[in-house]
Amino acid sequence: MSDQTALEEKPEDETEDDYALRDRVVNAAVEAARAGERAQLEEVFEPLHPADIADLLEQVEIDDRNAILKLAGDYIDGEILSEIDEDIRDSVIEALEPEVLAGAVRELESDDVVDLIEGLDTEQQGAIIEVLDVVDRIAVEQALSYPEYSAGRLMQREVVIAPEHWNVGDAIDHMRAQDDLPEQFYHIILVDPRHRPTSYVTLGRLMSSRREVKLSDITEESFRTFDVTEDEGDVAYAFNQYHLISAPVVDEEGRLVGIITIDDAMAILDEEHEEDVLRLGGVGDESLSNSTLEIVKRRFPWLAVNLATAILASLVISIFEDVLAAVVALAVLMPIVASMGGNAGTQSMTVAVRSIATRDLTAANAFRVIRREAGAGLLNGFIFAVVMGIVGLVWFGQPMIGVVIAVAMVINLLAAGLAGVLIPIVLDRFKIDPALASGTFVTTVTDVVGFFAFLGLASMVLL
Amino acid sequence: MSDQTALEEKPEDETEDDYALRDRVVNAAVEAARAGERAQLEEVFEPLHPADIADLLEQVEIDDRNAILKLAGDYIDGEILSEIDEDIRDSVIEALEPEVLAGAVRELESDDVVDLIEGLDTEQQGAIIEVLDVVDRIAVEQALSYPEYSAGRLMQREVVIAPEHWNVGDAIDHMRAQDDLPEQFYHIILVDPRHRPTSYVTLGRLMSSRREVKLSDITEESFRTFDVTEDEGDVAYAFNQYHLISAPVVDEEGRLVGIITIDDAMAILDEEHEEDVLRLGGVGDESLSNSTLEIVKRRFPWLAVNLATAILASLVISIFEDVLAAVVALAVLMPIVASMGGNAGTQSMTVAVRSIATRDLTAANAFRVIRREAGAGLLNGFIFAVVMGIVGLVWFGQPMIGVVIAVAMVINLLAAGLAGVLIPIVLDRFKIDPALASGTFVTTVTDVVGFFAFLGLASMVLL
Repeated sequence: MSDQTALEEKPEDETEDDYALRDRVVNAAVEAARAGERAQLEEVFEPLHPADIADLLEQVEIDDRNAILKLAGDYIDGEILSEIDEDIRDSVIEALEPEVLAGAVRELESDDVVDLIEGLDTEQQGAIIEVLDVVDRIAVEQALSYPEYSAGRLMQREVVIAPEHWNVGDAIDHMRAQDDLPEQFYHIILVDPRHRPTSYVTLGRLMSSRREVKLSDITEESFRTFDVTEDEGDVAYAFNQYHLISAPVVDEEGRLVGIITIDDAMAILDEEHEEDVLRLGGVGDESLSNSTLEIVKRRFPWLAVNLATAILASLVISIFEDVLAAVVALAVLMPIVASMGGNAGTQSMTVAVRSIATRDLTAANAFRVIRREAGAGLLNGFIFAVVMGIVGLVWFGQPMIGVVIAVAMVINLLAAGLAGVLIPIVLDRFKIDPALASGTFVTTVTDVVGFFAFLGLASMVLL
Repeated sequence: MSDQTALEEKPEDETEDDYALRDRVVNAAVEAARAGERAQLEEVFEPLHPADIADLLEQVEIDDRNAILKLAGDYIDGEILSEIDEDIRDSVIEALEPEVLAGAVRELESDDVVDLIEGLDTEQQGAIIEVLDVVDRIAVEQALSYPEYSAGRLMQREVVIAPEHWNVGDAIDHMRAQDDLPEQFYHIILVDPRHRPTSYVTLGRLMSSRREVKLSDITEESFRTFDVTEDEGDVAYAFNQYHLISAPVVDEEGRLVGIITIDDAMAILDEEHEEDVLRLGGVGDESLSNSTLEIVKRRFPWLAVNLATAILASLVISIFEDVLAAVVALAVLMPIVASMGGNAGTQSMTVAVRSIATRDLTAANAFRVIRREAGAGLLNGFIFAVVMGIVGLVWFGQPMIGVVIAVAMVINLLAAGLAGVLIPIVLDRFKIDPALASGTFVTTVTDVVGFFAFLGLASMVLL
């Protein structure tokens, strides 16, 4: 019982550790589930936000998760379900009783149902769509007909509209007469007679304007619409760039079909960042919920590609076996040149990949950025050349080794700067995600150039 | 003139290329500025959003930027100014005429003024605060008294409040009688007699409820408050985790001092991600606007640390000079072991750092994650051991070289998996940002373990 007490003691405290589900809570839930104590489990869940219960289910071992679901499956409502990570969602859904699942799904808005089921297989999708009432079913099937990751998947269909000629009084009376307004809305969208959105008015502005003011006189400048097929990443970018709160979605004819709100755009922005970070780290798509076997399967291809490039670098080294056999100091020093190149290349690449993602690196300034990276590579190259020249000389007592490593350092850091910025730009031109593939290419360049320059120079100078 | 025409042709088109400021537009602005054609420059700016004009100023060369500001400095309003990247903000502000700057600043809300000036030096700050009217000046000085990166800096002070006992009609009448409602607001905050926020009601819910309904009966469950000193990163996390639209900020006594809205939280989420990505890439804090010298200065420390660890790895290699001199094949193959370890370590580390940032990796599941990484490291180690064993045997015709590289591969991938997850966890415990420092430690481990295992085994088996 001490766990619950500890929890209740500081419900308002918002320090970092409170966001993380403290292990106390997780352990209390696991203990209750293992002991089959339903009341105790409910007591643990009671003060938690649905998003935190979902996190808890993600953090426990598979067996414990199943025990929790078996004991308190009917506690899982639509909100918890839609918060659960996609990687374990199908197994959670499978563990729920059909009528519990149906109840959970029915309480969701149609856009949340779409979000819930779009990652599931067709069979599970069908089973869930079946339990919806007709209106929701049509809405969900309509949404699923739009491309994956499109504005059409992201939008909600419930919107509040007004003809352009209305005044504030008309709008207020109209809204107050309706009894099925959306749960969350921030704007009234003005539409022309063909149902095409032309501008919008915020509720706050409406509240502070006199009844006779025309809606068209208090519209917001920030108004912009999205195509129903537009990529959700671009939508999220535009929300952040232009400070949008909500934006109408239109079909090919420009007619209003739904609305996207900033909370959904924020979630997408977060997902896109997550994807970028993981791809830059050579991981692709994985989460903590994945099993050992799953992560081995997901990481293997990246390591295999790396092995191929590492072997390529070794082939370069093998060209210079003679000089390596003659001067063993070269074998000791050569990883330094490659390592510095790899690091400098990763620096340039990280900046370039990020700048492409934030649309800051464009054709307009590409040349300036390339020149800057080359300059920085050269400059850092000279600095570290001096340092390493001295290290090489002092360590091995041979001035020429110092010279060789110094020159190789300059060459490789220049190559690193150029490769780091050029490779992402070229990949982006070919519509390949720079975050996905740049790393391998950049380190291949710096390894090959580094070993080739260092050992090549050495064989010219020292043999 | 063709540039402007091309722009106007597709003002509604929302493809990816339209978000990026196309070079046409940038070039047109630069040409106009160089030619001193003010009308032409205005024509380029006219259709652009303030955020895009700010991007344009960031993307041009320094000389061109100054030419643009000289020609059309008075075009720069508060909105453009507050969108400009912090790295060039001070130089832009310096280039503006004092009265232009004063005009731009006066039109901003107090929270935007804070955001604008918090990165500036004291002198520039003072000059800007001076031009504000008394009310705004007090608000800005109050905000600056809160810690940097705190909720107090992020919040706006304009809030709409209501006593808890009011009904819907009271609230609507009250709002409609006011003439200084905030420009953007989404909730009415209920406060107790001591001015402490207790819950809130959305404007949409207010519109759809009958006049006699009590406000306290239609409050939102999502309500939560932030401490004025709370870290802005934690605020952004909470907005995303709990789907908040706005949240009151309270002082030590729990009294309402302001409100944070989701658009500001989204901007912070974006900045935090940016910081994480750059730190993971070993760059720290930099933007495309930085000059060559500035980026050399910022990247140098990271490269210097890397040099130190690379020399450490070389020292390990130098222990085994004898075996390297005897079997030159080892020098050819040894970078492969280190490279695979480095990659596998980066994979584990990326997942761990991200999971710590998203509060998914906690004390509750740390042991499971460590076990999983060790398992994945071993499994991938065995797979690549077999592959490299064969490669080594075929390439150099010596079975024992194949065995040595195979065993070293297993050892190093296990080390990589463990270091990749343990190092971020330990750094986080010591309150050091894992994104900042993990990379160096992880590659040091994989380099040292890789070379030591490979060459150590070789000297036992082959000498």
